[in-house]
Amino acid sequence: MKTLTKIALLAVSGAFIWGCNSNKNEGSQAGALGTDAASKVYVKPGEHDEFYGFFSGGFSGQLSVYGLPSGRLLKVIPVFSQDAEKGYGYNEETKGMLETSFGFVPWDDAHHPELSQTNGETDGRWIFINGNNTPRIARIDLSTFETAEIIQIPNSGGNHSSPFTTENTEYVVAGTRFSVPYPQKDMPIKDYKGNFKGALTYVKVNPETGHMNVEFQVMMPGFNYDLAHSGKGKSHGWTFFTTYNTEEASTLQEVGASQNDKDFIAAINWKKAEEYLKAGKFREMPANYVHNQYSDETHSTVSTKHDKVKVLIPEDCPGLVYFLPTPKSPHGVDVDPTGEYIVGNGKLSADLTVHSFTKVLDAIEKQKFDGEAYGIPILKMDEIVAGIVKEPGLGPLHTEFDDKGNAYTTFFISSEVVKWKVGTWEILDRAPTYYSVGHLMIPGGDSKKPDGKYLVALNKITKDRYLPTGPELNHSAQLYDISGDKMQLLLDFPTIGEPHYAQGIAASKVKPASKKYYPLDENKHPHAVKKDADTRVVRDGNVVRVYMTAIRSHFSPDNIEGIKVGDKVYFHITNLEQDWDVPHGFSVMGANNAELLIMPGQTETLYWEPKYEGVFPFYCTDFCSALHQEMQGYVRVSSKDANVPLKWSLGDDE
Amino acid sequence: MKTLTKIALLAVSGAFIWGCNSNKNEGSQAGALGTDAASKVYVKPGEHDEFYGFFSGGFSGQLSVYGLPSGRLLKVIPVFSQDAEKGYGYNEETKGMLETSFGFVPWDDAHHPELSQTNGETDGRWIFINGNNTPRIARIDLSTFETAEIIQIPNSGGNHSSPFTTENTEYVVAGTRFSVPYPQKDMPIKDYKGNFKGALTYVKVNPETGHMNVEFQVMMPGFNYDLAHSGKGKSHGWTFFTTYNTEEASTLQEVGASQNDKDFIAAINWKKAEEYLKAGKFREMPANYVHNQYSDETHSTVSTKHDKVKVLIPEDCPGLVYFLPTPKSPHGVDVDPTGEYIVGNGKLSADLTVHSFTKVLDAIEKQKFDGEAYGIPILKMDEIVAGIVKEPGLGPLHTEFDDKGNAYTTFFISSEVVKWKVGTWEILDRAPTYYSVGHLMIPGGDSKKPDGKYLVALNKITKDRYLPTGPELNHSAQLYDISGDKMQLLLDFPTIGEPHYAQGIAASKVKPASKKYYPLDENKHPHAVKKDADTRVVRDGNVVRVYMTAIRSHFSPDNIEGIKVGDKVYFHITNLEQDWDVPHGFSVMGANNAELLIMPGQTETLYWEPKYEGVFPFYCTDFCSALHQEMQGYVRVSSKDANVPLKWSLGDDE
Repeated sequence: MKTLTKIALLAVSGAFIWGCNSNKNEGSQAGALGTDAASKVYVKPGEHDEFYGFFSGGFSGQLSVYGLPSGRLLKVIPVFSQDAEKGYGYNEETKGMLETSFGFVPWDDAHHPELSQTNGETDGRWIFINGNNTPRIARIDLSTFETAEIIQIPNSGGNHSSPFTTENTEYVVAGTRFSVPYPQKDMPIKDYKGNFKGALTYVKVNPETGHMNVEFQVMMPGFNYDLAHSGKGKSHGWTFFTTYNTEEASTLQEVGASQNDKDFIAAINWKKAEEYLKAGKFREMPANYVHNQYSDETHSTVSTKHDKVKVLIPEDCPGLVYFLPTPKSPHGVDVDPTGEYIVGNGKLSADLTVHSFTKVLDAIEKQKFDGEAYGIPILKMDEIVAGIVKEPGLGPLHTEFDDKGNAYTTFFISSEVVKWKVGTWEILDRAPTYYSVGHLMIPGGDSKKPDGKYLVALNKITKDRYLPTGPELNHSAQLYDISGDKMQLLLDFPTIGEPHYAQGIAASKVKPASKKYYPLDENKHPHAVKKDADTRVVRDGNVVRVYMTAIRSHFSPDNIEGIKVGDKVYFHITNLEQDWDVPHGFSVMGANNAELLIMPGQTETLYWEPKYEGVFPFYCTDFCSALHQEMQGYVRVSSKDANVPLKWSLGDDE
Repeated sequence: MKTLTKIALLAVSGAFIWGCNSNKNEGSQAGALGTDAASKVYVKPGEHDEFYGFFSGGFSGQLSVYGLPSGRLLKVIPVFSQDAEKGYGYNEETKGMLETSFGFVPWDDAHHPELSQTNGETDGRWIFINGNNTPRIARIDLSTFETAEIIQIPNSGGNHSSPFTTENTEYVVAGTRFSVPYPQKDMPIKDYKGNFKGALTYVKVNPETGHMNVEFQVMMPGFNYDLAHSGKGKSHGWTFFTTYNTEEASTLQEVGASQNDKDFIAAINWKKAEEYLKAGKFREMPANYVHNQYSDETHSTVSTKHDKVKVLIPEDCPGLVYFLPTPKSPHGVDVDPTGEYIVGNGKLSADLTVHSFTKVLDAIEKQKFDGEAYGIPILKMDEIVAGIVKEPGLGPLHTEFDDKGNAYTTFFISSEVVKWKVGTWEILDRAPTYYSVGHLMIPGGDSKKPDGKYLVALNKITKDRYLPTGPELNHSAQLYDISGDKMQLLLDFPTIGEPHYAQGIAASKVKPASKKYYPLDENKHPHAVKKDADTRVVRDGNVVRVYMTAIRSHFSPDNIEGIKVGDKVYFHITNLEQDWDVPHGFSVMGANNAELLIMPGQTETLYWEPKYEGVFPFYCTDFCSALHQEMQGYVRVSSKDANVPLKWSLGDDE
């Protein structure tokens, strides 16, 4: 029996291959591509896209900003990974952003971008994204499109079901994908069952500043918590987390975690949690995590260590959590715009199961339970199902919604997006994807106010869709027009890293207006200098600080002497420009570091330990003017014992 | 006088600002954009672009591959900078690629991509690109689109005039932008004049394997060597390097390096150099550089240190080098498809000066010299000029050619591309750019066989061209149709980093056909394992090697015990897949490293020093199958002294 299951599952696992056997001309097949597709995606030079699309970078660790409908990559925002292009995670100002309880971690696996919401609508203030490997959530400020804050999630093992906001951004959530000993300790892996735990974390967001803090955790059984969505409208106050591996297998999970016909959606009543917190019904438990905040004003990161967290135990807190049985290894859990319907995308299920929130409340009230798991009541499935979309496709993963009462579900194995009617559960349309679609995105598609114009399919397999680039290929997205009855494929465009989910928003909603530069008079960097006359070089033991300015087309100072081999040299460089899009760059030959890319009004710091005697050039690394090539200088490095005094030149006055 | 010059130059330096004062609707202005532009750039889903475009990443340090005419980003190839997305520069196999004489350098400023050529035509075998900050040249293999080799350039200070191939890829060249003491030593910067030197380096390319080695250097005066191009056809055997700062100013160069009315184009007769080398007329001089080669077979990097270089001194080698006077601070030097015309783009000159190679040879033969500089004959300018393009625009930077005898020059300050006739020097057309164009690219546009269909302008200033993304904006390219008499603007598309130059090639010319995966039976990685049964964990003191396999949808082993805090753990992971586009990823929680992204048939190694006791998950970071979420395992970490034996599970057999 076990072997049979294993074979069947391996077949499913490999089955997407047939999805790739299409010919290359499907683009021109009848109905799939109208003749007007070109004009629908073309944005004339100088005109702007209608929507921002924020695409997770997946294994790149970053967040990519695309314009839609053009599919053009507008910016890569460094978040969880070092980015040599921008000096992020290399310069002294941003290194702290990548601090964790494990020390400096230069990479993460960024999964789900989630825009902040007000009244269940995206509000264009911030976007959050989770780090999956070393559990974290980041907040990006949409006035600067820069990462403002990263908070580590304690007692977790893979922060996958995250960050998924509540309807007024009261919280973003973080559910552990891999259960772990809680608190962490050395124990045999075979003792997993019953001993490993799953933390579901609520991170509170300050409504004015956006600042995050870990408010509380719910300690759940040792299942895998895959994805989540919070309720809205009538289900506001609840969050729904999918689980798989309710078998609690601790080896060969491709078989062991796929035995049960049903797993659960865990429904957390977070308003009830707040009551328990107020009543002191929590345990304070050890934690070990770091919280990093970047300041635009001081251009520096403050990292704070934490060692405790408030934990709610379901047994102690009746009414806090219920299990909704859902076939089979549900991946995404998606809530429709009204908040009534909870879609469980059972990735190994033949059907798509939709629960009714009204029925859930009713079942809770009437205690229609089907036993319990680790003290958590399991609702009777028959009592809560609103409807079933019958045999819609193979391998459902995710569902989003439009503004006309329709839902769109992705099917990884059968490589398609299926449109169905919320309430009647009838299938209205299906569109092939090339190939093996994972997430999908409709701007506002997980909010109360979806925009029903475009759908983006985020495909996991690319193969022959573009000119070949060797064994490694970019992932690929597809843009569909969903304004009509039938989906119309408009465009294929490659994407950076592996976008797990994306969010879109009308450009007009991104407020406050995007910042164009940093006002110099607001720059409170402790090592900023604001005019050439204040530039200087200061030695304190073997620490040398160069207080430097950059403006078209020179550095001040441009020549420095008296540096010794083995010195610890800090170049603090302030870009004096006060205009949009006039960055300066800085690097010095042989630096074991990335360069600086300094926006107007900012101060950034490059750390350099010179290794050899000699005269080494530095220069501006961002072409800034007709005399950019002349924007250079030299550092003279002498031996430790040389009698060369500290000296620097300001051009004319040498 | 000095002050006046300074003011004038600063005005020029800032003058591009007026180029940005256009309104946003120029896209629809008469003539600039035909109604058919949308259909000209639209590539239907599933169809392929016609050209590869290889765009330098500039301060990103990488090489971006775009499809043209769609402007879609097909891949970013990591070259000179760490890339957390791909584990490049982090995993054990590729860390060596970023070794230099300064140790590990995680970043560089990648400037000029240059395709290999046969008979003066691009041949689609390799593409070279220079690192500007820590002087290097990289070779990318176009069968895999991966960086195969990086060689450091000794005795240089900013490798800007590079790599620019000769017509059969006999050499790629490297000219120092900043002159330095040669060999490097501690000396006062004020002694620059006459004492600092400029190395022009010829890197020989093996015609079969592509392997590079530093063949010889020419030790030149201490000018700044800005750009270069080798001759072709009748001028085959020569290379032309622009110079600026022939004043040898060593401070405030924006003024000091712009005093002379003319600077030089240095013409190097490299065939003559080969004769001098054979005749032993070189000096062997100290050098200090590193050469890194990556092997597809062993998936490892071999780094070799070098400490000597052969140097030709112009005084010792009559006929090796001549100076061609050229107004004023010439930036690009571009040779037309016939090899007869040498265009000097004098960035501070009102006109564009074109030299005749025939006249240059004649002047040399007849010794029509205008004195000499540091022993190098200066040709009489009047004797070598073929023609002048009169007042074509402000701030000429670069010129490329089409297949109909036309040249196209970019003007940074007046923000335009100007088309002119080679031979008659008349201006035929001009097109505005948005904004401040630097380089331009026509596929094959610096070869003997340009393709005259498209031109790409690489703009330095973006400002309002796209939806705003805060103070930092992507750079921007513009695609023009140049098949007709007038240039037609088709498309704006944002670009990664700062593309200094790009090269394009018809997709059909990229041969051999792109590799789709690495054959497992050719994998000679010393730590590869090729079937699950061979996987194991081996301890040697505190070094632990995990020999692991990855295949849909499990790692073998999936659980590991007996690891101790402070161990040096190497995860050697072989991807057993043998199909296109089925990578697996690997990471372990809290690793102070980036993940692995392992192509089918490859072995890659992640190094991990566990810090704490506990049980830590690892998982596949690239969504690979319907059971990808189940592709995980755990590592149990015990204290140094714990009595936990090494143990690993292969699923069923535990």
